[in-house]
Amino acid sequence: MSTPVELLAERLRRAAAEAAEAGVDLLVVTPGTDLRYLLGGGGDSHERLTCLVLGADGHAAPPALVVPKLEQPGWAGLPLDELGVEVVTWTDGEDPYLLVSDLAGGPRRLAVADSMPAAHVFGLRDALPGARQSLAGGVLAELRMRKDAAEVAELRAAGAAIDRVHARMGEFLRPGRTEAQAGAGIAAAIVAEGHTRAAFVIVGSGPNGASPHHDLSDRVIRAGDVVVVDIGGPLASGYNSDCTRTYAVAEAPPAAVREAYAVLQAAQEAACRAVRPGVDAQEVDATARRIITEAGFGPRFVHRTGHGIGLDVHEAPYIVDGNQRVLEPGMAFSVEPGIYLEGEWGARIEDIVVVTEDGAERLNDRPRDLVVL
Amino acid sequence: MSTPVELLAERLRRAAAEAAEAGVDLLVVTPGTDLRYLLGGGGDSHERLTCLVLGADGHAAPPALVVPKLEQPGWAGLPLDELGVEVVTWTDGEDPYLLVSDLAGGPRRLAVADSMPAAHVFGLRDALPGARQSLAGGVLAELRMRKDAAEVAELRAAGAAIDRVHARMGEFLRPGRTEAQAGAGIAAAIVAEGHTRAAFVIVGSGPNGASPHHDLSDRVIRAGDVVVVDIGGPLASGYNSDCTRTYAVAEAPPAAVREAYAVLQAAQEAACRAVRPGVDAQEVDATARRIITEAGFGPRFVHRTGHGIGLDVHEAPYIVDGNQRVLEPGMAFSVEPGIYLEGEWGARIEDIVVVTEDGAERLNDRPRDLVVL
Repeated sequence: MSTPVELLAERLRRAAAEAAEAGVDLLVVTPGTDLRYLLGGGGDSHERLTCLVLGADGHAAPPALVVPKLEQPGWAGLPLDELGVEVVTWTDGEDPYLLVSDLAGGPRRLAVADSMPAAHVFGLRDALPGARQSLAGGVLAELRMRKDAAEVAELRAAGAAIDRVHARMGEFLRPGRTEAQAGAGIAAAIVAEGHTRAAFVIVGSGPNGASPHHDLSDRVIRAGDVVVVDIGGPLASGYNSDCTRTYAVAEAPPAAVREAYAVLQAAQEAACRAVRPGVDAQEVDATARRIITEAGFGPRFVHRTGHGIGLDVHEAPYIVDGNQRVLEPGMAFSVEPGIYLEGEWGARIEDIVVVTEDGAERLNDRPRDLVVL
Repeated sequence: MSTPVELLAERLRRAAAEAAEAGVDLLVVTPGTDLRYLLGGGGDSHERLTCLVLGADGHAAPPALVVPKLEQPGWAGLPLDELGVEVVTWTDGEDPYLLVSDLAGGPRRLAVADSMPAAHVFGLRDALPGARQSLAGGVLAELRMRKDAAEVAELRAAGAAIDRVHARMGEFLRPGRTEAQAGAGIAAAIVAEGHTRAAFVIVGSGPNGASPHHDLSDRVIRAGDVVVVDIGGPLASGYNSDCTRTYAVAEAPPAAVREAYAVLQAAQEAACRAVRPGVDAQEVDATARRIITEAGFGPRFVHRTGHGIGLDVHEAPYIVDGNQRVLEPGMAFSVEPGIYLEGEWGARIEDIVVVTEDGAERLNDRPRDLVVL
């Protein structure tokens, strides 16, 4: 996906407007997903400073991309001319922070990318001692959390790609294999099905499934195991997939497990159905949590219900208690309640959903039952 | 490689001593290579704060690892108990920066990891308003730039692994293939020969070779092309390879190219021979640059001569004009002069060298001539 220039220009305009709204004079955005969102691409960041300098509405600072002369060719594919972004290069020996200071128009409030490394944060602090530094993430999240049609199409493609991997799960989860062996096969399938890489592969078998952030181990998968498989990665466009299913290996688990799983499935279903414009984020969390708590598993659901997704796997809006953000069309996030019995087993069901005009579209559609492989 | 506990304990002791020496009260180190160096491993960093809190000598703050409760299992493999590092967990909803503040012992000078994201830098700034923030990188570089025998062994293994890829270059650089196609084969070989991933693959053919940071393009490689191949990646231990060779495809290039290349080869050889304890870093740069300049190519050598390497591909010491750092045994860095004729061709030769008691060991030994494939 090459983002149309008009769309990028609109993003830059909106970023400048949101910055002014937030009381910020200048945005300084180093390489990462914020920069990719604003410019439609972007090279890697090494120890040399590369950044977009973008004045807020009403602040006199022409948009500029500061980039090491050596790395300039890596930015040649972007429509910087059309966007009116001047390229300002520097060479080893020059002070790039003074260069930013020269371009900055004397800002009093400087917002930097949330991921900007401390080395650059302090370089800018010293070059612009009169500017109070804050985070640009909140300003840019206002743009990024509302996906346009092209972005939703990419997320839909990512969802379909990861669904194809889940559809092949019987190839990987076999008694006698370790989680790591299963994970290697899954990682290769993630790439084969259209991702540029496997960003994360969680195979939590048996008691390991009770640790929500367990990834892979040398534990051997056995018949009767309940296994949590939480996988995803980016497409070439940078947009990510993220989908969890829980499987039973070779035989159905005992009734107690199946009953708890049915509670989880009902909670995930209800939370997905709660998603629509006008509802706030915490209400989606509360919907899942109520059902799980009423069944007596409240203390076993140890994390938030979900996270936004796009160019980052985790981004706004977070589906968590206390988040009163009102959902709007185009917002995309995971709905992934879980139940974890420490030392025994765990289960989680995760779909990515996008808020539509009157409800939500699920981007994953593999069966949500406790499938026996 | 699992780093012995005694070695890690020594690293923590030396970090505390170097911090005191630098006038710093407390180090706060988020996940990254600094943390991996100090603890012998470490999980990923997501948006939730994970950090090592380490008091300088004479500052009362017991060593602690602050980690999200959810991610604690990912740190279970580290010898934190043996190292006397207390694990302090936090859950969503708590303020992790206040937790650090509680552990910090009232520091006036706080040094944070150079790579710490701005979001955490500002979180700590607000929770510890009395502490002046600076970078921990300089303090930790004093440790990291002197490799111990186990680290040198890892770098040696990495050098041998990337040499095996260069030895196979005839499989990939063929007339009619694009740089991207050749690069895909090289990337697979980097993994096949023992790296966990291909961290970078530069195939600069013909005029693209004149851009030192060009990576890959759809340019078709032709007979007669001069091609710069600069590749590397980490082993499982985290230690990196980085090696450049320049090839001629199918036929020897014209005399003018061969003559310029001979100058480059002499410069690289002389710079490698200049490496020994007691010489300063800039002298190694000057040695290569003098030879290239005297031959009239001075303005065509547009970058520094090298960079340190270890857990990071680029780290201290930098082999650059102005760096008076005196070389000591155990320091490891690249020696990689280049000559670039814009629009025509480029060449670079890069070896990793380690300073020994009386000279230097080269960790790459593929032929340095302009090999015709």
